[in-house]
Amino acid sequence: MHAYRSHNCAGLSAANAGETVRLSGWVHRVRDHGGVLFIDLRDHYGMTQVLCDGDSPAFKALEKVRSEWVIRIDGTVKLRDASLVNPKIPTGEIEVYVRDIEVLGEAAELPLPVFGEQEYPEETRLTYRFLDLRREKLHNNMMLRSNVVRSLRNRMWDANFNEFQTPIITASSPEGARDFLVPSRLHPGKFYALPQAPQQFKQLIMVAGFDRYFQIAPCFRDEDPRADRSPTDFYQLDVEMSFVSQEDVFAAVQPVIQGVFEEFGKGKAVDGNWPLIAYKDALLKYGSDKPDLRNPIEMQVVSEHFAGSGFAIFAKLLEQDGTEIRAIPAPTGGSRKFCDRMNKFAQEQGLPGMGYIFWRKAEDGSVEAAGPLAKNIGPERTEAIRTQLGLGEGDAAFFLGGKPESFEGVAGRARNVIGEELGLTQKDCFKFAWIVDFPMYEKDDEGKIDFSHNPFSMPQGGLEALDGDPLEVLGYQYDLACNGYELISGAIRNHDLATMYKAFEIAGYGHDEVEKRFGGMVKAFKYGAPPHGGCAAGIDRIVMLLAEEQNIREVIMFPMNQRAEDLMMSAPSEPMNEQLRELNLRVIPQD
Amino acid sequence: MHAYRSHNCAGLSAANAGETVRLSGWVHRVRDHGGVLFIDLRDHYGMTQVLCDGDSPAFKALEKVRSEWVIRIDGTVKLRDASLVNPKIPTGEIEVYVRDIEVLGEAAELPLPVFGEQEYPEETRLTYRFLDLRREKLHNNMMLRSNVVRSLRNRMWDANFNEFQTPIITASSPEGARDFLVPSRLHPGKFYALPQAPQQFKQLIMVAGFDRYFQIAPCFRDEDPRADRSPTDFYQLDVEMSFVSQEDVFAAVQPVIQGVFEEFGKGKAVDGNWPLIAYKDALLKYGSDKPDLRNPIEMQVVSEHFAGSGFAIFAKLLEQDGTEIRAIPAPTGGSRKFCDRMNKFAQEQGLPGMGYIFWRKAEDGSVEAAGPLAKNIGPERTEAIRTQLGLGEGDAAFFLGGKPESFEGVAGRARNVIGEELGLTQKDCFKFAWIVDFPMYEKDDEGKIDFSHNPFSMPQGGLEALDGDPLEVLGYQYDLACNGYELISGAIRNHDLATMYKAFEIAGYGHDEVEKRFGGMVKAFKYGAPPHGGCAAGIDRIVMLLAEEQNIREVIMFPMNQRAEDLMMSAPSEPMNEQLRELNLRVIPQD
Repeated sequence: MHAYRSHNCAGLSAANAGETVRLSGWVHRVRDHGGVLFIDLRDHYGMTQVLCDGDSPAFKALEKVRSEWVIRIDGTVKLRDASLVNPKIPTGEIEVYVRDIEVLGEAAELPLPVFGEQEYPEETRLTYRFLDLRREKLHNNMMLRSNVVRSLRNRMWDANFNEFQTPIITASSPEGARDFLVPSRLHPGKFYALPQAPQQFKQLIMVAGFDRYFQIAPCFRDEDPRADRSPTDFYQLDVEMSFVSQEDVFAAVQPVIQGVFEEFGKGKAVDGNWPLIAYKDALLKYGSDKPDLRNPIEMQVVSEHFAGSGFAIFAKLLEQDGTEIRAIPAPTGGSRKFCDRMNKFAQEQGLPGMGYIFWRKAEDGSVEAAGPLAKNIGPERTEAIRTQLGLGEGDAAFFLGGKPESFEGVAGRARNVIGEELGLTQKDCFKFAWIVDFPMYEKDDEGKIDFSHNPFSMPQGGLEALDGDPLEVLGYQYDLACNGYELISGAIRNHDLATMYKAFEIAGYGHDEVEKRFGGMVKAFKYGAPPHGGCAAGIDRIVMLLAEEQNIREVIMFPMNQRAEDLMMSAPSEPMNEQLRELNLRVIPQD
Repeated sequence: MHAYRSHNCAGLSAANAGETVRLSGWVHRVRDHGGVLFIDLRDHYGMTQVLCDGDSPAFKALEKVRSEWVIRIDGTVKLRDASLVNPKIPTGEIEVYVRDIEVLGEAAELPLPVFGEQEYPEETRLTYRFLDLRREKLHNNMMLRSNVVRSLRNRMWDANFNEFQTPIITASSPEGARDFLVPSRLHPGKFYALPQAPQQFKQLIMVAGFDRYFQIAPCFRDEDPRADRSPTDFYQLDVEMSFVSQEDVFAAVQPVIQGVFEEFGKGKAVDGNWPLIAYKDALLKYGSDKPDLRNPIEMQVVSEHFAGSGFAIFAKLLEQDGTEIRAIPAPTGGSRKFCDRMNKFAQEQGLPGMGYIFWRKAEDGSVEAAGPLAKNIGPERTEAIRTQLGLGEGDAAFFLGGKPESFEGVAGRARNVIGEELGLTQKDCFKFAWIVDFPMYEKDDEGKIDFSHNPFSMPQGGLEALDGDPLEVLGYQYDLACNGYELISGAIRNHDLATMYKAFEIAGYGHDEVEKRFGGMVKAFKYGAPPHGGCAAGIDRIVMLLAEEQNIREVIMFPMNQRAEDLMMSAPSEPMNEQLRELNLRVIPQD
């Protein structure tokens, strides 16, 4: 017989009754029922109830085992009494009567129990991650992640993509975040960097003549801690294709992502209609460039109804350039109580408040508009608004005014809350949208023109478009939004050197600067670069959505804490002097 | 029509004759046949001949294109004349008459031609890697690597392994080689390390209750340059299993590796018989712990025939403790010329020489032994040696004496040369063997006992075995040898803390030292560790064998040069002062 097991702990059923078997696993739970010991024996696969009484030669030894000891038992499979069958687990019809036991690994007093679902401080959980991972939830999350990654890979391969590994110890590539540096021992004073993303390498792979690349790629950014991101490394499904336009990328990626959500979405509906929404429209309708389309509310511009109206605040606002009044329709939100609560929400978010109108049944049975705003602008305008928004009795609408950038964020959050509170937002489904037509440039706080997203994107209209107003230039740049999260970001790249130099020039970078920063790629583009584009999908984010987790650490095997420390392995730590000497480095003493 | 192509450059055949098509790709070669331009248009998939004459509106533009320009052409598919059909390529029956052309990317004068097979200095090849990769050989190597990795993954998954990602920015884990360090910005003066291998993490995954882990894992070692290894990072197929003995690991791994060699071995025979050879026997029979079993020669101990014989050098040697005489049989090597050449080889390798006997046909038709050794020891001993080695007329045998460790290496290399030169070593096949029973300890140069391989391996016989002579203790440690290379290394791990402390104590490491160095793992073993074991296979090595490449850089997409520099991306480089300040580091000026 095998040294450790004839079956795993999910492998026995009524069909095995009477057989002599061997099992190994962890002692999940011990119960003593008056001289009969019951043990739930657990392994990776499942759980089997084993038992023992004083008649067994193993009794004395089995009495000593405690939670989380690793044991090997030999015994006989017995059918449980019908009344004791547990239909919830595959082995619920049987139990194993133990005749022999071997302790394979004892366990000290546990800092964190595996059995049960008590909450424990994250510090304890991370220090004893190997115990926390034995718990069902985390175990399942890790298996989910593993299976999601496998599925993503297979789907990419089936779509004729090839996976290539790109360097991890490489050159600094300033892409917005901070690099992790790696000092070189062979070249004193010089440093490598860990890649923030394989952006340049995947473009070089296209220039090198490969056609469809992907990689489940580790990315490294030395960013300040935040709850929903890893402070060191994260994984992305990195994709690049040659001789493609934006639509080709969408057509390649949608089946992969949609398929994974269908496969692992626990039966939630996965909407196969992925609309293309212009960035500008997304901000207008949803107040976000990663809108949650489960929420049916779409905001609208209603400026005309307030221009010159009796509501002086909005009427005056509209006299300024670039201002607008927008409405958030709130079907079924037609009560003063709800409207006041939302008004308060806007105040908590830093706005003076949100005007509102709601429609109720008048005493004569007709529909009547209520709220201070309605009074100020009068019944005609109020009715015009109601008609435009398609609202009726029992509904409400909220209004925000000013320069859109000053209230769009709050409007988006208000839309979320309204959808949620009124039960308008669908549950148990995934809705996707491609956000397209991102502007290439924006003005920074000092009025300087800078890239608003990825500097490597191809401007729509190419070189010629760059001769006009930079703030009007759109890029072939896109995001995929799902349920209010950004899952994917990508672009058709600027593979034309002249256009690239010009694009950088507008943002204030000269030729020399571009060649210095992106030397490898610029050099490559001189020798026959194909049109190409791609995207990158956040693996951790996808798994978080599928696992319904809010904290990224719940979907990573061995995560850092928020201070970028590995509490289990004690990293980072002080180096040995010898190491620093070899690297030609000195640590500057702290004051 | 699609902006860039209706077909790829391998997609057209006689069946498309008459169709209007669009192709994009690189200009591989231009030939001007008296007013008719022929261009081999190349993409990732293949090559299509396109042509144009003065009648086409595209002629003027097409005349301007040069090698490695990226172009898009529209044209009509024509059948080639039967005499011009090229059966070597899928598109060899057709050509495309060009009517429209668009230049998608021009190419400057090439520092490295893509067409043709000229050798170029490695520095040029690495600086312009994106051009070098367009060449057929390298392109094929990268595709092979991608497919091998895919196949390894699928085979592991099919065998119920799960892939998990382990941290890349983590703690220093002293495993013999030098760590790459990563300074922490948030914790001044502290450093992370890049993992030399996920050794501790994969063991922790087992302790965390997962059963069968694998990962195509990047590993990082700051090692001094060598031709056949990457100076920074490399990939391994990392494997770990719980509740297993050595045989279980072998049974799990063999089908995976054998399958990959059968799939990608270009029809070479893959021997399915993987013998287990004890480390000691491997050194004795093959003079190597990674023997090439395609070579049928097995060395033997022949001390008894020389003890007290007339060959004074060997006879005297044998009076010392620990000495032996070993024979390398050389079937068909029975000529003085060959024997002298091999003797010279041994001298070049630093030995005084190799004694030999060879057997030839005597004048009376019988078999006669020749060579000085034969004379010295006389016909009876000579004949006994011939009988033991199973040799006959036309064969030879070489002899080495002394303490085995002083000549085993040379003996192994001599065996290789003999097998090669005499044509005994099989070509076009892969032969594997598991090398087992490695000693746990060895004496270092100063006579101190140290681990000979992996300190985490379980000693055979467990804790008790450690009470005897450490040099006699064998470990459950194993390598897989293939054609003279080590492909895999692995072990059943020491999961018992008492045994681990004792094992380290013997090598001179106290409790404190063990807890300090391997804190995470030691802590975990206190809370119920299962028996477990695994191995790691070198991906680069496997691909090198399959691609028949000697240089690891031929199977890596973007390799470092031997000075650990990325010539394409210019890494490592000097950091900005701001970066050093953030990391609290100062570079010590060089004298």
